[in-house]
Amino acid sequence: MATVDVDTTTESGKAAAAAAPSPPAAACRRSSFSGADLALRALLFAVTLAGLIVLATAKQTVSIPVPEIPGLLVSRPAKFNHSPALIYLLVAQCVTCFYSLLTALTSLKLISGSSPTKTLFLLVLLDVLYAAIMASATGSAGGVAWIGLKGNTHTNWTKICNIYGNFCRHIGSSVFLGLVASVILVLLTILNAYCLYRRSR
Amino acid sequence: MATVDVDTTTESGKAAAAAAPSPPAAACRRSSFSGADLALRALLFAVTLAGLIVLATAKQTVSIPVPEIPGLLVSRPAKFNHSPALIYLLVAQCVTCFYSLLTALTSLKLISGSSPTKTLFLLVLLDVLYAAIMASATGSAGGVAWIGLKGNTHTNWTKICNIYGNFCRHIGSSVFLGLVASVILVLLTILNAYCLYRRSR
Repeated sequence: MATVDVDTTTESGKAAAAAAPSPPAAACRRSSFSGADLALRALLFAVTLAGLIVLATAKQTVSIPVPEIPGLLVSRPAKFNHSPALIYLLVAQCVTCFYSLLTALTSLKLISGSSPTKTLFLLVLLDVLYAAIMASATGSAGGVAWIGLKGNTHTNWTKICNIYGNFCRHIGSSVFLGLVASVILVLLTILNAYCLYRRSR
Repeated sequence: MATVDVDTTTESGKAAAAAAPSPPAAACRRSSFSGADLALRALLFAVTLAGLIVLATAKQTVSIPVPEIPGLLVSRPAKFNHSPALIYLLVAQCVTCFYSLLTALTSLKLISGSSPTKTLFLLVLLDVLYAAIMASATGSAGGVAWIGLKGNTHTNWTKICNIYGNFCRHIGSSVFLGLVASVILVLLTILNAYCLYRRSR
């Protein structure tokens, strides 16, 4: 009878040990990882939404004199959709904004306790994809914005930021916010990969 | 005596179990993960080196007629270093080429059997950083190359690829190779994160 009792205790002990998280997993869950993940995703949402709004409102119309006809002014608008690179940045920010919202919900689940390793791997997979997309979109818009700011004498591409000052400020701010979003996505990838690493030790 | 024998066997059994890799770790090591990692790094080296050479040799000189003086031709060269975006792509490809060489040695160590989890995490960390750098450099050069190919009527930036055809082919090829390198780096991040995931299950 005593033997039966001991056996039962051992079995229940084993079951409890199986149900309880392993020390590294628990450390990963209990620590501030999930909180940092949620905070970064909330920041990503704010940054991409701000970048989206700043870029979508990048419009300026200026009156430029026509050299051939003295006294005649022509109204020339500048919009973000005049450049494919800026459209690409807008789409990337829009998609990343939506993605950050969706994954913030997953992050909330991680905080609540149910954090399967598979979810962490999927987050790493998606984060690195979005990081590459955001980085390329930021680079693309940044390259075009640089020509607008400085021009290129070799190709006779004149700078436009001396005329479209307000428009360029919008573009510059959006590119900067795109850069911040890319850095956040890289940090998120590293954070979740570190959590996987802690669990695999 | 018999009890001592049994104890010794159990202890040695435990020691052997501790020395042997755990099933997921062994699966990760024995499988083709390390081989795929090395193959991708070798491909990354080849792609970045090719992109580097193609971009560095992007030079073309054409004779352009001067509209003010009929019959007069002016020699106008085009080089990759005329654009900061192309210089950025060259530097990114150069650094990534060197990085791929260094990490290929680490990958060889992984194949030989000694694959600490810390190394896998460090590879994920560095791969995602380089993926973001390569993606932004490719995007930046791609944005400028697109203006060279199509021009922009809104900003009066004329296309140059109708004149500098050979130069543009070099730039286009290098941008394409940069894109391939970015994809490889994203795949490498996912591969090593998957290996961490397999070990943490």
